[in-house]
Amino acid sequence: MPRYLFCLEQFTKGASTISSSELARLADETAATVRKDLSYLGSHGTRGIGYDVERLSDTIRQRLGLDRLRDLVIVGLGHLGTALANYGGFDEGMFRVVGMYDIDPEIVGSRVGGMVVRHVDDMRSDLASADCVFGIIAVPPDAAQEAADLLVEAGAAGILSFAPTLLRVPRQVFVRHIDLATELHALSYYVTERRSHSERRAAR
Amino acid sequence: MPRYLFCLEQFTKGASTISSSELARLADETAATVRKDLSYLGSHGTRGIGYDVERLSDTIRQRLGLDRLRDLVIVGLGHLGTALANYGGFDEGMFRVVGMYDIDPEIVGSRVGGMVVRHVDDMRSDLASADCVFGIIAVPPDAAQEAADLLVEAGAAGILSFAPTLLRVPRQVFVRHIDLATELHALSYYVTERRSHSERRAAR
Repeated sequence: MPRYLFCLEQFTKGASTISSSELARLADETAATVRKDLSYLGSHGTRGIGYDVERLSDTIRQRLGLDRLRDLVIVGLGHLGTALANYGGFDEGMFRVVGMYDIDPEIVGSRVGGMVVRHVDDMRSDLASADCVFGIIAVPPDAAQEAADLLVEAGAAGILSFAPTLLRVPRQVFVRHIDLATELHALSYYVTERRSHSERRAAR
Repeated sequence: MPRYLFCLEQFTKGASTISSSELARLADETAATVRKDLSYLGSHGTRGIGYDVERLSDTIRQRLGLDRLRDLVIVGLGHLGTALANYGGFDEGMFRVVGMYDIDPEIVGSRVGGMVVRHVDDMRSDLASADCVFGIIAVPPDAAQEAADLLVEAGAAGILSFAPTLLRVPRQVFVRHIDLATELHALSYYVTERRSHSERRAAR
């Protein structure tokens, strides 16, 4: 679903409808899978016309819980955290950064993207009245579990971690990892499969 | 497969075997799916003992084309590119950064992680004799397509892009996107599903 939304948002610049096969090509799926996935949402295209891009985006957004604003906090304001803080994609009315935290005395108190970085010890009281906060972990691997523990204590509902470490959190907290090595492995897999496929064809 | 490898590498610290149910729990899959996926690789666990962690990791690594060293270049040495350049996960003998490129005169010629950043115009000649290079795009969205074009011209086999933009590349070049908004959408989806599930249960 998030993948479809990404494709729709990239694609929509101008177009008002999209066919299942176009969406399938963008999302790297088959048209049949796209139709099945979207019918699960109650969205059906019109034969010969396709899906209404805006209505479909709205339906997916609602399903993803993106019909209300989500609060984010960033833990770790090194190069990665700073890049994330300056990332434009937050500003689309769906996510907003409400806090930035670090432990380094040289970073705490400095301004990143117009916001003052606070000490991680302040996180719990800062978020005491927040309803549903997502935390982004951008600290070195050996500090990632501690950052996760602090986020859990502060009541985070979900965590997105860039640290290549499995995190132990209570069952009700969702964690997603963005692991560069895993992404590179996947890329390597596709390239290797493609090459061995070409070699087998050449050998015939 | 990359996900299993990530879990195995996190897990292996000490253990020599792992059961399909343990691996399933780590990878957020069912044990049956794990057994099916791994049997596709020709790897079968021993009943009551599980899989040999080292042998399984090697098998997956070979399948992913990670039994040889892969060369990486980073395009864009802002905060994100610098964070990636300093990322420790490269140094495990599977990937190595062989070049860093930017267009900003203040960045070109500077040192990042012990390597001098070169101008993007030098990329093609730098990589003329390389066999299989992966490119990482860490430039602003409006420069991402140009970075992709340069990587394609320089002969990159795969591209990992952090820019929230769909890239147009020839069919033989693989592209993976790491899109922060998409990851946050996915997190939001799980949290929303969980909450509405709890609410439905509470309403019964």
